[in-house]
This record gives sequence, C-alpha cells and structure tokens, in this order.
Amino acid sequence: MTLPHALTPILEPQSVAVIGASSDPEKRGHQVLAALRASGFPGTIYPVNPKGGEILDFTVFRSLTELPEAPDLAYVALPAALVPNVVRECGQYGTKGAIVPAVGFRESGKEGAELEACLLSAAQETGVRVIGPNTSGLLNTHARLHMVGGEPLPPGGLAILAQSGNIALDLMTAASTRPIGVSIYVGPGNETDIGFHEYLDFLGSHEPTRAIVMYLEGVADGEALFEMASRVTRYKPVVVLKGGISGAGERTARSHTGAVTGSHKVFSALAREAQMIEVVRADELLAVAETLATQPPVRPRSDDTDGGVVVLSDGGGHATLSADHLSKAGVPLAHLSSTTQEALRQRLGPAANVNNPIDAAGAADQAPTVLGDVLQILASDRGCHAILITGLFGGYAIRFAEELATEECEAADQIVEAVRKEAVPIVVHSLYAARLPPPLLRLLEREIPVYGSLETAIRCLTSLCVRGATPESLIGISEGQPNANRKARYGSEDVNWRKRSSQGSWLSELETRELLTPFGVPMVPSTFCHERKDVAAAVGKGPHVLKLVSRHLPHKTEAGAVRLGIEGSGQADVELKLAVDSASTYLAERGLPLDFDGFLVSPMQPKPLAELLIGAQRDPQFGPILTLGMGGVEVELFDDVAIRGLPIEEDQVVRMCHELKFSPLLFGYRGRASVDINSIAKIGVAVGACLLTHSNILELELNPVFAYVDRVVAVDATAYVGSIV
Amino acid sequence: MTLPHALTPILEPQSVAVIGASSDPEKRGHQVLAALRASGFPGTIYPVNPKGGEILDFTVFRSLTELPEAPDLAYVALPAALVPNVVRECGQYGTKGAIVPAVGFRESGKEGAELEACLLSAAQETGVRVIGPNTSGLLNTHARLHMVGGEPLPPGGLAILAQSGNIALDLMTAASTRPIGVSIYVGPGNETDIGFHEYLDFLGSHEPTRAIVMYLEGVADGEALFEMASRVTRYKPVVVLKGGISGAGERTARSHTGAVTGSHKVFSALAREAQMIEVVRADELLAVAETLATQPPVRPRSDDTDGGVVVLSDGGGHATLSADHLSKAGVPLAHLSSTTQEALRQRLGPAANVNNPIDAAGAADQAPTVLGDVLQILASDRGCHAILITGLFGGYAIRFAEELATEECEAADQIVEAVRKEAVPIVVHSLYAARLPPPLLRLLEREIPVYGSLETAIRCLTSLCVRGATPESLIGISEGQPNANRKARYGSEDVNWRKRSSQGSWLSELETRELLTPFGVPMVPSTFCHERKDVAAAVGKGPHVLKLVSRHLPHKTEAGAVRLGIEGSGQADVELKLAVDSASTYLAERGLPLDFDGFLVSPMQPKPLAELLIGAQRDPQFGPILTLGMGGVEVELFDDVAIRGLPIEEDQVVRMCHELKFSPLLFGYRGRASVDINSIAKIGVAVGACLLTHSNILELELNPVFAYVDRVVAVDATAYVGSIV
Repeated sequence: MTLPHALTPILEPQSVAVIGASSDPEKRGHQVLAALRASGFPGTIYPVNPKGGEILDFTVFRSLTELPEAPDLAYVALPAALVPNVVRECGQYGTKGAIVPAVGFRESGKEGAELEACLLSAAQETGVRVIGPNTSGLLNTHARLHMVGGEPLPPGGLAILAQSGNIALDLMTAASTRPIGVSIYVGPGNETDIGFHEYLDFLGSHEPTRAIVMYLEGVADGEALFEMASRVTRYKPVVVLKGGISGAGERTARSHTGAVTGSHKVFSALAREAQMIEVVRADELLAVAETLATQPPVRPRSDDTDGGVVVLSDGGGHATLSADHLSKAGVPLAHLSSTTQEALRQRLGPAANVNNPIDAAGAADQAPTVLGDVLQILASDRGCHAILITGLFGGYAIRFAEELATEECEAADQIVEAVRKEAVPIVVHSLYAARLPPPLLRLLEREIPVYGSLETAIRCLTSLCVRGATPESLIGISEGQPNANRKARYGSEDVNWRKRSSQGSWLSELETRELLTPFGVPMVPSTFCHERKDVAAAVGKGPHVLKLVSRHLPHKTEAGAVRLGIEGSGQADVELKLAVDSASTYLAERGLPLDFDGFLVSPMQPKPLAELLIGAQRDPQFGPILTLGMGGVEVELFDDVAIRGLPIEEDQVVRMCHELKFSPLLFGYRGRASVDINSIAKIGVAVGACLLTHSNILELELNPVFAYVDRVVAVDATAYVGSIV
Repeated sequence: MTLPHALTPILEPQSVAVIGASSDPEKRGHQVLAALRASGFPGTIYPVNPKGGEILDFTVFRSLTELPEAPDLAYVALPAALVPNVVRECGQYGTKGAIVPAVGFRESGKEGAELEACLLSAAQETGVRVIGPNTSGLLNTHARLHMVGGEPLPPGGLAILAQSGNIALDLMTAASTRPIGVSIYVGPGNETDIGFHEYLDFLGSHEPTRAIVMYLEGVADGEALFEMASRVTRYKPVVVLKGGISGAGERTARSHTGAVTGSHKVFSALAREAQMIEVVRADELLAVAETLATQPPVRPRSDDTDGGVVVLSDGGGHATLSADHLSKAGVPLAHLSSTTQEALRQRLGPAANVNNPIDAAGAADQAPTVLGDVLQILASDRGCHAILITGLFGGYAIRFAEELATEECEAADQIVEAVRKEAVPIVVHSLYAARLPPPLLRLLEREIPVYGSLETAIRCLTSLCVRGATPESLIGISEGQPNANRKARYGSEDVNWRKRSSQGSWLSELETRELLTPFGVPMVPSTFCHERKDVAAAVGKGPHVLKLVSRHLPHKTEAGAVRLGIEGSGQADVELKLAVDSASTYLAERGLPLDFDGFLVSPMQPKPLAELLIGAQRDPQFGPILTLGMGGVEVELFDDVAIRGLPIEEDQVVRMCHELKFSPLLFGYRGRASVDINSIAKIGVAVGACLLTHSNILELELNPVFAYVDRVVAVDATAYVGSIV
C-alpha cells in the first residue's frame, strides 16, 4: 500500500468550508457553493459568514469555530487584506488547506508583496497548505469537487495546471467535448506556498490522471519543477506551454502573475532534458496531451532502419502536405516491405500509389472497408511505427453516397481493431472532424484521436515520436533518487571575492584563470607582468598578444585593450601605450576607475578549425546551466547554442556539440578534419564543476575557445560574481 | 466598358455539354449532370452519349454534331485515351472550352506524357481552351455552375485555385460554414493548356471574387504566375500554400501532378516579391484569405512611431500569449496615448490594466457593453492600427450568467460600429467560436472574422500587416506594363561555348572572368600562365595564391588545386607540383580528363570584414534570380541568403543585404566599420545583368567576395552553361 500524498487532503478533501459565503450570485462566495452543489460533491460543505442564515439551502455558520469539525479545505472568498489572518485561524483550527482566489498580492506591487509574506508566514506557522493566491481555483472531477466557475465536468483523464484562468477554461471547454475529459484542474497562481512541482508530484501518482497539461508564465522554483518533471515524465506524459517568452509578453506576464519570467531558450532546453513535451501554440496543447494519453509512444518495432510513419490518404494534397510537415519535423516516412506493397496493391488495385504516402482514393471512397483491410496490412508491417490517416474519412457518406454510412462505421471498427492488435499509434485527420459524423465518433469513443487540422494531427504524431525517443540525457540523475543528486552537488565553497560579490562584480582574466586552473581547463600560456617595464621582456619569438588585466574590462576587445601580432620589444612598447591609452579613454567615458592589475602576454595561436564559446551560469529561475556554442566576437549573430542543466557528464557535452547548426565544423566538413571533441567535453564538464563549486559565481565564460585537431585551448575567460536575488 | 476576359465563356458558360453522360450514379458522367441540376444552372445542359436515351430527365444526344448549337463548355467524362480526339471534335464544332478530369496523362509516365502532347495539339490547333487534365473540376457559384462533387454552395467571395481536389474540398467545406463563401473553384490539374496565371488574371477582374486562395505543388510557368500575381495583388489579396516543399513531399507531388516542384526558398522569395501572402499550414489558408477579404490592411494612421496592434483580452493568459506571438512575428503593440489610457481607466475601473495588452476581465464579464465602449475608445486612438479581441467574448452568457445574453449581443453590435466608423481592422479569437453563440454569429454576419484558435487569429492579423506594408520592391516592373519589362530584358546573346552548353558544362575561372569583365565586376588581379615554367616568375613580392585553371574543377579547393601563401619562386615550384598532383588524382578518381588550361597567380588579399557569395541562376520553374549571402566554404552552414527575381536595381541589392541574419557584419557591429555596401550593390546588379545577357548561362557564382571598408572584390568565380530543359 502506498501512503497518501501530502496534498491528498487538500486536492481530494472530505469536507470543505467556504469562508465568505454569500447570497449574492455575482460573488465568488456564492458561485463556489453553487458549483459544489451542481457537481454533487459527496463530502460536507460548510458555508461561513458572520451574518449566518441560509444560502442555497445550506445553513451558514457564523465562524470557523462553530463548525462541528475542522474541514479539510477552506475556500477563502475574501479580499486580500483579510486573508492572512483567516488562513492563520484555519491552521489553528486544524484545517489542512486553503484556496485563496484573491488578487492584490505580489503581482500588484510592494504592499501586495508584504501581504503575501504575511500569508506565507501564517501558512508556515500553522501548517496550512495554500493554493494561490491569485488562483482561479480547483476542480477534481473524480472527487466531484468543483470550485471554479462554468459547467460541471464528468470524470476524465487530463490534469491541467495553469497559471491563467482563461487558458484553463479554454482547455476545459475543449476537453469537455472529447472522451478523454478532465481529471483535476488547479491554478497554482502566485505559488506562494504550494509550487508547480508539488502539484506535479501529486498528479504523478494520481491514478485517474493519464497526462498532465501545464500552462505557465513564471515559476517560483524552476529547478524543483524540472527535477520533478524528469521523474513524472518517466511514466506519464507532461505537455507544457510557456507564456511570456517575448519582451512584450514578459511585461504582460509580470503584471499578471508577479513572477519573473525566465529566458525561453533555457526553459526549452531544460524542459526537453526533463522529457516534457513543449508546444508553442495554445491550440495544440490539449490535442497533444490527448494523443499522448491515449496512444503508445512511437518506437521502432524492428532493427531495420527503414521504419517510420505511414501516411494513408485519399487524395494527393493531404499526402504531399503530410510528407512536407513530417520531413520538416525530422520524422521519417516508413519504407514499406515489398510484401506489404504487394498486399496493398491487391487491395487497392494496380493503379494505386502503394509507396508511402499511400493514396487510397478511388478504392476507399467506393468501399470504405478497404481502409480496414489496408490498416491491417500496414499495422502488421514491422516498419510501420505509427499511422496517420488524412483526408475525407468519416465523411464518405456526406461526400460520395449516403449508402456508404454503414460500411464506413465498419471500417472505423476495423481500424480500431487493427491498431489495437499491433499496438501501433495512430492519429486521424479528417476534414469532417467538426461535424463529428458516426464513423469519427466511433474512433473517438475508442480513444483514437481525430483532428480537423492536418497540422495539429501531425504535431500530435511528432510528439509521440519525441515521447518514444530514447531519453537523450537525464542530467546525471540516478534512478530511485532523482531529487538528491543535483542539489547535493551544488557546492558552497565561495570564491574569495566575497566583498565584491555582495554587490556583483566581474573578475579579471587573471582572477578567472586562477579560478579555472584547479579544474584542469587548458588556457593559452601567458606571462603576467605587474609592471609596464616587464612587458617588453615577456614578448618572445614570433607574434604575441598583449592584454590589459582589469576587472572593469570584461569586454577587452571593445576597449582596445587587446593588441594582436606584436613582434619584438619595440612594437611591444608602442602597443602597450596604445592599449593603455585606449582603455583609459574607454573607462573614463564610462566613469569607471583607471584601475589595471597589470598585463598578460601570450604567444599568438594559429588559426583554429573552429572557435567556441563555453559558459556556465546560474539562471535565476532554472538554476545552473552550461551553454556551448560557436564563439568569437560574432557569437550573437551565430545564435547557435546548446543548453543543459548542471552537473553534466562528458557524453552530454558531446551531444551538445552535435546539436549545433555548425556542428559540421567540429565533426569534419568538406574534407576538413574533426576537432578534438574529447577535450571540448572535458572543458565543458570542468567549467560546469567550477560554477557549482563556487556558489557566488553567477557567470563563467570562455570565449573564444580555439579548437584544433589534437587540442583545445581557451584564449580568454571572464567571470561574474554576485549573489542571486 | 471592359472587354470580357478570354476565359469568360469557359468559366461562365451559357451552355454546357457533358460528353460521356451516364445513367450510373457512380460515374462522373452522371454525377456532373446531377450536380449541375442541383445547383440550378440556368443555361442549357446537353448530355452526350452514343447510346442516347434519357438521364435525369435530360434528353441524351448521340453525338456533338446532333446538338442544336455549339456549347460554350464541354465536360469530357471519358478515359484519357479518348480525350484528344474528343477535344479536337469540340474545337471543330465551335466549343470554346473543355474540362478534362481524366488521369493517365503526364503524371503517369512517358506514354501519358505523349497523350498529353496530343491533347495540347488538339487544343491549340482548334482553339479549344482546356482545363486540366487531372482536374477535379470547376465550380462557379455565381453562374450556378457546379461541376465538382459534394453539396451545392451559395454565391460567395473567395476564389480557390487548387492542384488537389481534397484540399479544395477541405477549403470549400470550411468556407461553406462562413459568411464569405466561395465564388469560383478551378482545379488547374496538369495545366496543359490554361495555366495558373491565366486563371489568376480572370479572377483579378472577376467582380464577386474578393480574395484568391491557391494551393499548388508544381507550376507549369512560374515566371508567368509571379508576374500575374504582382499585378493582381495590387487590388486583391492572393494567399498561397505550396505543397511538395520537402524531399519526401516533392516525391509525392511528382507522382501526383507530374509537375516539377521548385525550390521552396525561391518560391517564398518570389511570392513575397509579388505581394502574395504565403501560409505554411493548411489550417490557416481559408482563415487568412477570409480576413484579408473582409478587413482593411493594417496601415499607420498617423506619423507617430508608437502605433501598432491593440490586444483586448479578458484574462492574463491570452494576453500574454498574444504578445508573445505578435512579438515573434515582428508586429509591434501600440503604445496608447495617455488620453486613451485615462478613458479606459474610467470605463474599466482603477484596478484594470490599461496598458496594451488591455485586460477587461472583471468589468466586461459583468457588463459586456463595456467592451463596446472600450472598442470606441481604442478605435479613435490614432496609434491603434488594428485590434485583436481574445478570450471569452461571445460566451459570457455561457460562462457567467444567462442574463448577459442580450447585452453581449449589443456589445457585438457596438464593436462592429466602432471599427467600421474608424475603418480599423479587427480579428476576434473566442474560445466559444466552435459553439457559435449569438454574439459571435452577429460578428461573423457583419464580416468580422472570429476564430477558435488564438494562433490562427494572430496569423490573420499578421497577414493584414504584411498586406498593408509598403511594397518593398516590385522588381522593376513599371506601372501599366507589368508583363513587358521582365521578359524584354532577357537577353539572347549566347556566350560562345554553344557546343559545350548543349550538354551542360562548367566554365573555368578564366572563362568566367572574361564573361564578367564587361559588366564591371571587380576581381582580384591575376596573371594567367599558360605554361608551368611561367608561374614562378608571376609570383611577386608578398604572399600569393596559385590556382589551376580547368573547367573540370568547379570546386578547386576540394581538389587541392588552390595553394595559398606562396612566397618566392622556390615555394612556387613546390606548390605547383602539389597542385597538379592533387588535382590529377582528384580528376582521375572521378573519371574526368586531366585537362588544364593553365594557372592563375594572384596576390593574397588581406582578411576582409566579411565574405559574401553573390550568385545568379535560372530557376527552371521561376526564372532568373539573384542570390546574396554569407560566403566562403561554410556557406551551406550559414544558410543565410536573400533571393530576388532578376533584373534588379542597386537599392534592392542593398535591401537584400539588410535581410541577412549576418547583416550586422556588413553594416557595422560592435564597433566594427561598415563595408562598402555600394560596391556590393553594383556587383549584384552586374552579376544579374551578365546572366540575363547570356541566355545559356544557367548559374554564375562569385564566392568568396571579400568586402572591405572601401572596396569589394571577387576572389573566385565560376559559371555553368547549358540549356534549360
């Protein structure tokens, strides 16, 4: 027997109090009572209002203490200012959870933030767990607990976590028309107490929930979210849409949820690492979740390399567009065996196109059960990893002849039987989906997803492919102890710039080099000269580079503080003067102190095969990450980076190299040799370890890193120390 | 009075013959008669079948010659093999057009292609214009002429040109549920005779047609299409979806329409030049066309730079996602004036967010007419260039209280009035769109587009922005004579490699240099040495480059035939031998002749600020184009090119430079200087002119072109001569 989850009494309560119950139908304190009644909540309902009396035939209690028992959950339908005290009372009385719909907390400014701090104290001191504030409520169809507005919903399988009541309503409205239905909806709101990850944890073990849909703008604890997600996604699909990804969007998000919205790239990379499925369109969220909940993931059924998706159409255009879209998504079409092709030809006639995409037009539209036979043939081909039916199916009786209706329904049954027998995933696009003719209803009732948009159907199919893919990496989290590892490896050994880091400061290249050396990061050899007079002697044979050392110059090149191609001591003197003059002007213009620690002199390196950037940073929302990309001064133009959570292993860094658009430069291209990937992997791990070891390093960047056939060396390095707000 | 269009008797016939009329309801020759009857075609209908008799109460004629008149249009419901002769008979009898639905022509292989050639001869010799073959038919709702299957449709405003019957059916099925409706549908099929551009020409002057929707896979005459489109789009929106853009898709397209599918990038660039709106999702095609047909384009209403789209939501999530999507599409949000904000605050209450996106939640859901007032306030702000309403509107009565129904309908009327008065474009997203509640029906009936998908609504809005944008370029086509210019400037002066070009051949660098010189393309100075013994003497002071000259070595670097950094005659001899040996091996491995013309010796150029590729080519489908992008050996990795049709002007080349992702490298970046853009523009024009002058140059490429602050010089050049198949 498994222990009940800590959130069980709150999300599946036996008794509920509505504090601030009202007889005014326009007030929340009335609507929630009405909704609870309408949904047939089987537990006890306690309306609370100092006025007493009756509302909707319920006897109203004048205060919490009048209740015959402590209710499991309290719905606090009161304005923000009153909430902290009421929550404290709830806790003192033994109530386990409180739902706070009120706005006027953190999202509304400084005063609200203070009020929210009071609410949190009240919760923590009395042990009450709080949903919200700024939540649109809670719905548990299996517990018949309805505490949001709108129509009651039957029990279903999709759980919804959404930071927007409207998006939630959107999803619930749409889900209510599909057989899958909704299991639980929670609006985490400001996440003052209960965070996304805790709801996710609960839903992971919530039996009726078959897939989890999330809409989030900001998240209070991004690291916890991804760690939890990487556990839950092992056995349940999690689909996520992230709002507030643009500058403009970010502004909107801030004014609405009071959460800081993190960089979208980081979010996407970490979501993928945690095996979540990210969608970027609201109109795909429900469909993708429904498909993932009802269809098996797309996985190879044999060792051959010819497997893939089979597209079955009844006309050219949809077949062409399906092939286009699948190709763009990187999903291969299956090459069907000659046996399969021969069987198809026998069934569809000699003129039919039996190469994938298969066109059944002319055969199926006169005798729909042909499709049933075709599906059986396809499903038994081991190269058929998944099936997309696209076109008119479901509407043959509408389009061609009413007499086809019965046979079309039979075909639907045969389709279901064929894919069930072989456990082949299937998605159906029909241009008659909106009309829901009987054959499509049959498919839907048997949990075969049907969509009116070809693009939505294809997105669902590709999400099944992603779900079926071998986990590319689980960021070093070992089985069984998913939570422990990552946090444990966070270091606490501060670097010795405490004073500076309290306000935030760049480190000079020299300081950064000292930081990196113990981790084995290879840097271009250099001589440090404290005095100007020592520079000339440090310039040896061949061309050299001279750099000013100052923590005020993180962008040395821009400041003219890097001089290249210095040969001999005469030139060294000239360049030294130029560097100092240029940097002085640069610093003076910016009101920074003319404060140099000295000079670094290094031999020029030969032209590398590739220049990289390798950096690590602490994302304020999502924790420590490693970034690897094409480097040099044009790094922003390339916009070609891979991102992973830290800590990281060498093989994961190698995979990051493969992810880059410019990866051919690293792995050989047009007769060019491959660079020393192993060394890149070692440096990636070392940079990550360095960041994790020193908890006050916020950013650490090697740029450029020169990669050669047999070695890799960092040419420059910088770091920023501070404390995360 | 305007003259009737040449296609008028065919697309708006007074009389129609159905040749191959049949009493079998499963045959086309029956279905078309039934469809014509059902649609109430007011002209004369002549069924023709040698058997005579009666079908559907029509008297059947035994042959064309028995008819009392030559019908305007003949629907030839006969197998492919019979079609050419029947079409010839039609022409001899005086019939003006023929529709050929039969397959078995070009798309089916060599024999079919021969049959199609016979069909074309029959048409051209007798003057019959042919729709198809391989067409799904013709529908003209205004002429009540229905010659495709399915339900009759009422007259409407969208014309559909589609190379797939299924996509057409998809569009017609969807359009039939919208007030805009369908005007004409034609399936151009194989375009043997009448091509896309001719239909487009007809539709351009077809009064009831308000927007044109095209689905195409291949197109017979891409140049004619784009030239016609650039005329028609001046006064009617044209929306296009291109199928067959992927390798896999291309294969499917080939087997279905027999047309060669061109490169998608070229198509997109030229479609944009012609001011067509390209969509990439089938589920957006109808919506975008409907919006463009019913809403004015988005244009600035004032000189201020703060204008943009206003988003009006009733909840956070949709507002955030709208801002995200608009930002991604590069569409600015309007900054509302303080007067407007104050007016909004008065109407929505002090707590409302009156910064764009505006959140009316809390006000509108209790009193929907608030939305009407808000719309009036917004529409009168000159910075409001367009409005997106997103969220629950239309469903307030469903979601909140039934009593709101009347007021919500009033609000709909007020919305219509407000945007009409100020001619502000508007698109509405409602999560209740699928249910079509009365307020949304009111909007739709007054031609305000409403969509259930937020992303579709936003795509519609961004297409209005594109439609309203100043034509970036009209490829030098002067007003009034759109057709003439481009063709006229195609040269016919062949370069003197006729013999080689009949089979296709590369030109050596030396040959290409000779070709380019008269057009003023600056190339790195070089000395040509016919004999090996002259090479050493040609190497002057400083480092030089040695290149083998051979038309068999278009990729010299790969063959080891380019030697860099040669200093002095001793090194020259060594490198010369290396080059010859390496190239000899390379040629021998490929079975190519060891055939060198000699050697080019040039001084090494300093490192440029940027390396470019500037090329021109004749696209087999879309005609001559100029390509400009980042150059060097990594050009495929950069995947950063701009494309335009030829001929071209200098300012257009400058705009191409701006289009590149790497444009900061050209226009100055992080303190780096800008390169000599004027010279790049001149070279672009020159390369284009060179291609147009010599009609047998298929490709011409300068790569790399070195760009400096004060000059631009081509380092290498190659060309391919041949004849377009």
